[in-house]
Amino acid sequence: MKIIVTGGDGFCGWPTSLHLSNAGHDILIVDNLSRRSIAKTLSYESLTEIHSISKRIAKWHELTGLKIAFKNIDVASDYESLLDVVTSFKPDCIVHLAAQRSAPYSMMSAQSGNYTLSNNVLAASNVLRAIERHNRDIKLVHLGSIGVYGYEDRAFEIPEGKTAFTGIDHNNECYTLHGQIPFNPTSIYHLSKSQITSLLNFYSQNYGLDITDLYQGIVWGTQTAETKLSAALSNRFDYDEIYGTVLNRFVVQAQSGIPISVYGKGEQTRAFIHIQDTVRCIETAVNARVARSGDVDVMHQISETRTVKSVADHVAKLMNADIKHIVNPREENEEHRYILASQKFSQLGMNDLNTLGDNLLDEIQNVVNKHLYRIDRACIEPKVKWGKSAKQVSEPVKSEVELSLVG
Amino acid sequence: MKIIVTGGDGFCGWPTSLHLSNAGHDILIVDNLSRRSIAKTLSYESLTEIHSISKRIAKWHELTGLKIAFKNIDVASDYESLLDVVTSFKPDCIVHLAAQRSAPYSMMSAQSGNYTLSNNVLAASNVLRAIERHNRDIKLVHLGSIGVYGYEDRAFEIPEGKTAFTGIDHNNECYTLHGQIPFNPTSIYHLSKSQITSLLNFYSQNYGLDITDLYQGIVWGTQTAETKLSAALSNRFDYDEIYGTVLNRFVVQAQSGIPISVYGKGEQTRAFIHIQDTVRCIETAVNARVARSGDVDVMHQISETRTVKSVADHVAKLMNADIKHIVNPREENEEHRYILASQKFSQLGMNDLNTLGDNLLDEIQNVVNKHLYRIDRACIEPKVKWGKSAKQVSEPVKSEVELSLVG
Repeated sequence: MKIIVTGGDGFCGWPTSLHLSNAGHDILIVDNLSRRSIAKTLSYESLTEIHSISKRIAKWHELTGLKIAFKNIDVASDYESLLDVVTSFKPDCIVHLAAQRSAPYSMMSAQSGNYTLSNNVLAASNVLRAIERHNRDIKLVHLGSIGVYGYEDRAFEIPEGKTAFTGIDHNNECYTLHGQIPFNPTSIYHLSKSQITSLLNFYSQNYGLDITDLYQGIVWGTQTAETKLSAALSNRFDYDEIYGTVLNRFVVQAQSGIPISVYGKGEQTRAFIHIQDTVRCIETAVNARVARSGDVDVMHQISETRTVKSVADHVAKLMNADIKHIVNPREENEEHRYILASQKFSQLGMNDLNTLGDNLLDEIQNVVNKHLYRIDRACIEPKVKWGKSAKQVSEPVKSEVELSLVG
Repeated sequence: MKIIVTGGDGFCGWPTSLHLSNAGHDILIVDNLSRRSIAKTLSYESLTEIHSISKRIAKWHELTGLKIAFKNIDVASDYESLLDVVTSFKPDCIVHLAAQRSAPYSMMSAQSGNYTLSNNVLAASNVLRAIERHNRDIKLVHLGSIGVYGYEDRAFEIPEGKTAFTGIDHNNECYTLHGQIPFNPTSIYHLSKSQITSLLNFYSQNYGLDITDLYQGIVWGTQTAETKLSAALSNRFDYDEIYGTVLNRFVVQAQSGIPISVYGKGEQTRAFIHIQDTVRCIETAVNARVARSGDVDVMHQISETRTVKSVADHVAKLMNADIKHIVNPREENEEHRYILASQKFSQLGMNDLNTLGDNLLDEIQNVVNKHLYRIDRACIEPKVKWGKSAKQVSEPVKSEVELSLVG
């Protein structure tokens, strides 16, 4: 298959590109390298060294003989170039991963929030429009977020996609309708992902596009079978307050002799998946042939749910570290039921996803150990706060964090 | 009350500003005059002559002694200036009307679609953020669109806001949740409005903002009690294929001796409201004191629903004109049940809204008669087409409509 991977230089995109290339697909990466510019602006660098995209691609070719093409295009702002690439490369499938993916980043300032909203929504809009205009048979696989549902206490299993609901109207007429459960995103990033779902529905329903939306959990792990082949192919390892995810941070803290910092009670439940399974699931979704129903095919891309506390306990025990509860910088529900359906990937044969108990922590420890000298302890403490009690301003905020935004 | 009206130079915004000023409120219009620039770019001008915003405001002051302030700010792209204005003017309420409001405009090209999406979503985002950052007690009244629901055949009454639904999960557990019926917008414009609803929910739920969202029907009529006072205060009258609404177009056609053109069967049902009632409803919403529930207060701002055909019949009979069914440029459901709850405005005492039978057509006929010499027949025929059967391209579309976008 000919596949365009947008965001193919990023944390999920790079290993996905290699994995799909290795599986025999013809890959074109489309990326504006925004993750690299944001890292520079924030001065929060990946623990692992990230080689330039040209070096990465050259090394992949040297090691495997496989070619990956690359186009530097800002998918959100440059529709013409995107359409040029789609019409000339003629992909069978577009894996759309191009997005600003950090919730804390989206809550830093007006600029970072609006950048996240417009960048993510317009990138998806342009990709959908390019498919609609050029060839409606191109399959679209979008990487969404399981965080769109929010974290209310829910006693039922959240379905994958639409389900039937019964209501009673003002005239006591009973009716049935099909829809997803209401989203309740708790950051502008997650809001942008929920807005993309309405774009996907729009193009699916009005133009019959073939769309799979993967609602992914928090990704842990760093390397995949392919990125391990050479240091030049290494994937990102983010552990800072903005882009770092919870497990990375815990392991860095444990390895550096700092107590593991749990935000609030730690009874927040989250869904997780290992990066190796991310690339396998995306491959499975790319290959899956689902009868087009006019509905987006929503799949929960997760291996398990766990409380943050249980993740901390797991790391603390394995690495003999202390745990410290700190004031939660996010105003969020710290105790709630959270049950997610995950039948669809099972039905496609993905029954062997890795869980935290599977010794894969060794790999993270190795990564951290190898790069101990690069650890910047100052970047771990949470400085971005959000929610009702976050400070308001009575005067114009010239001092609000200003970012020279990419894109 | 001190009230900021964003989009206060537009078709709904200008008469709203005058009406609220006349009612004794202190009005600040914030507008980037984008509707005027788009009219120039499209070469589709209002049938009535529109005076400059400064002349409008000066004439209002001359006639009534009342002052209206004006700031030229692009609310979607200039958050700093918006926040400056909010912190210095210290409004009690913001009536947020600033948006690109034409569905056909949003479907013209990639540029016009993305402009509509980003302009409308970011304008709402900035207004919400300014309230959240400066003073969470500022009431927000947003003018939404009843079109967000789409036009599926629905046998039940669509509720105003959230309602209770019952579902059964994968483990046969029965559960109840509260939400709105799923939106099914059929244009990028309506999609942008549905995306604004998720922004409103986000700020309402996470920061407790006091938000009323008015889901408005198609507006007819031109003048209100205040805009009638002088030609310099005249409101817009759009009848072109992009911004013109169905009733205006019908009257212009009938008056010019052209057959009234009905898109398709004409059994499409739509909701309507007269511009005089728009400004009264907005005033009522501004004054209403609803206990904050954490939910956005959704109100259907409509006076009646009718099929397009029945509107055409009404005009044809009154004006002795012919009707011609033309190929529908929009792929849409041309026959469907469409029942909208509208209890909330009734409960607030608005039981005397005008319907099409109320002789108000005279006013439109007068407007059209007075400006017969300005009618541009070429602008009526629909040229923007959308839906599954709209032409696709096999090569990059350099010829796609290019617009020098405002803002």
